[in-house]
Amino acid sequence: MSSTMNKPHAITCKAAVAWGPGEPLVIEEVQVSPPQPQEIRIKVVSTSLCRSDLTAWETQFGQGTALDVYVLLRIVESVGAGVTEFIEGDHVPYSIHWGMPDIDQQTRFSIKGKPVYHYCAVSSFSEYTVVHSGCAVKVSSVAPLDKICLLSCGLAAGLGAAWNVADISKGSTVVIFGLGTVGLSVAQGAKIRGASRIIGVDTNPEKSEKAKVFGITEFLNPNDCNEPIQQVIKRITDGGADFSFECIGDTGMITTALQSCCDGWGLTVTLGVPKVKPEVAAHYGLFLSGRTLKGTLFGRWKPKSDLPSLLDMYSKKEIMIDEFITHDLQFEDINKAFNLMKEGKCLRCVIHMPN
Amino acid sequence: MSSTMNKPHAITCKAAVAWGPGEPLVIEEVQVSPPQPQEIRIKVVSTSLCRSDLTAWETQFGQGTALDVYVLLRIVESVGAGVTEFIEGDHVPYSIHWGMPDIDQQTRFSIKGKPVYHYCAVSSFSEYTVVHSGCAVKVSSVAPLDKICLLSCGLAAGLGAAWNVADISKGSTVVIFGLGTVGLSVAQGAKIRGASRIIGVDTNPEKSEKAKVFGITEFLNPNDCNEPIQQVIKRITDGGADFSFECIGDTGMITTALQSCCDGWGLTVTLGVPKVKPEVAAHYGLFLSGRTLKGTLFGRWKPKSDLPSLLDMYSKKEIMIDEFITHDLQFEDINKAFNLMKEGKCLRCVIHMPN
Repeated sequence: MSSTMNKPHAITCKAAVAWGPGEPLVIEEVQVSPPQPQEIRIKVVSTSLCRSDLTAWETQFGQGTALDVYVLLRIVESVGAGVTEFIEGDHVPYSIHWGMPDIDQQTRFSIKGKPVYHYCAVSSFSEYTVVHSGCAVKVSSVAPLDKICLLSCGLAAGLGAAWNVADISKGSTVVIFGLGTVGLSVAQGAKIRGASRIIGVDTNPEKSEKAKVFGITEFLNPNDCNEPIQQVIKRITDGGADFSFECIGDTGMITTALQSCCDGWGLTVTLGVPKVKPEVAAHYGLFLSGRTLKGTLFGRWKPKSDLPSLLDMYSKKEIMIDEFITHDLQFEDINKAFNLMKEGKCLRCVIHMPN
Repeated sequence: MSSTMNKPHAITCKAAVAWGPGEPLVIEEVQVSPPQPQEIRIKVVSTSLCRSDLTAWETQFGQGTALDVYVLLRIVESVGAGVTEFIEGDHVPYSIHWGMPDIDQQTRFSIKGKPVYHYCAVSSFSEYTVVHSGCAVKVSSVAPLDKICLLSCGLAAGLGAAWNVADISKGSTVVIFGLGTVGLSVAQGAKIRGASRIIGVDTNPEKSEKAKVFGITEFLNPNDCNEPIQQVIKRITDGGADFSFECIGDTGMITTALQSCCDGWGLTVTLGVPKVKPEVAAHYGLFLSGRTLKGTLFGRWKPKSDLPSLLDMYSKKEIMIDEFITHDLQFEDINKAFNLMKEGKCLRCVIHMPN
């Protein structure tokens, strides 16, 4: 730290770079620019990855990309002109935020003078990174950085979908499609709100046991059903659920989720980023009979004002975070995290950066 | 009246029957059965028609159908077993209600012993009709029956969409696609809620002047625009409207309405019954960026408990009804009402039944 403090020049450090779709990440020496006006440069302590990282890695880019979206950036290393909110040494979990200013379309990474590109304006798979100060949130320095990094993405997204977007009511029936971290966070949120039935749907039978920890009361595997899953759900709920959540990233499943809701007030929330077909299609009658379809990317949280209250709930053991961490990995094993995610063998892998 | 009171036998009276799709209605002598348990038989005083009648008339049936959905049924003529809420002589505007019990799949109309079928469980284009008592609402006998009949369908649907479904807030920007009675009722509801801009979209330039009466502040004709209407709306509203309403019955226009809303909290409400393509299709990104799509058929009103309060607002001149009535027609001129609706030359035609 001391070697870089207050020295607004480029830093050379290690970053995991994806050179092509689906190719294993390579840990390279990269140069990280100093922060520009309104930016901060930060030292990454812990990070993680989510399904969207995997999708981006598999599909989205042609040129070298320093992944990721998930991150706890421990220490503000230096600040750009005009930044008054942060000082060197602040602890900041960085949150992506739909619609927040991206850094000026220019990358802050390079290798031997050639540009290496960001992903999702975060890029935490690097010892140092540069982000817009508008997207960073200051937290107490006692919060366990290798746990709360998970609040920067899927875990908060799921809780927010349950609370801020759906506003789940006590005694209601909830069905969740996809029991990854996002879906199980929705389950946790539904349980805290007092939902009476929380039905989890997943084609991976290994999800069944772990799902109970987060509040799933019934597990359904569509592959074990003799009729379409929406018909099963309508039957066992006597007409459909009050709330359904699509946490897979499959537009066809959004339609299924709508069909699984009840007439009159059924509400479907979609949180997934579809990997294939981008069009949501549904019969108009599903809406005219009273259903609502909402979408959300980060659970309608306002990170700067709301993340501290989530941290507070965690410190009081009102919400679970640790239970989502299935693996702790060192930075050099980052490809293992991608493979575990790809194979559906993990919830969240926390990646620890070198000291 | 006195000739039929307390005589639970069939009544012979006049009804307008549609014998085939798009064929002019024929006024026939029909037999109307006595009310069965939980039903009431009523004498129709005034009725009207809506765009859905026209659609049904043009497309939906093969056999003789005694149309309609819109109605004020002035006087309860007789009641079936188990009916305690109504007595002979009560004034009842009948409201269709999605999901309410239909009369037992058997028609109550016949011509010389051959069945003639209902439409939408109402069938008010008849001097007498039979309906389920669960769908009828008792009102004060001083309410002007030839006006308040309009509250049974589109007018209440529009107000309910603005208030109960969208919950339009003061100062917000609203865009309405389709300026028929439903769309203009949404405009009235938005104006009462204090919306600052109410943009009306219609391809019929004749709608422009009348629309102002109901609160439309800007009129857009897509045929006069050089770019897609959603782009025009996004530009003039600096990013999109807070609320958009699809009041045409066109699934493609639902997509346009979603695209006309802003990121973050844009809400689209669809009220129309599509006549052609039944699938709503929209890019998932419209939802993930925070938009909501809701549908409603009758504005989430609970007719028995809520219609009296709408009547009360009308009596205090807090809502307009009379202004929607562009034509008063006698029953024998009912085909004129269909033609006016088809040509877009009316808002509502009130049809007066013979005394």
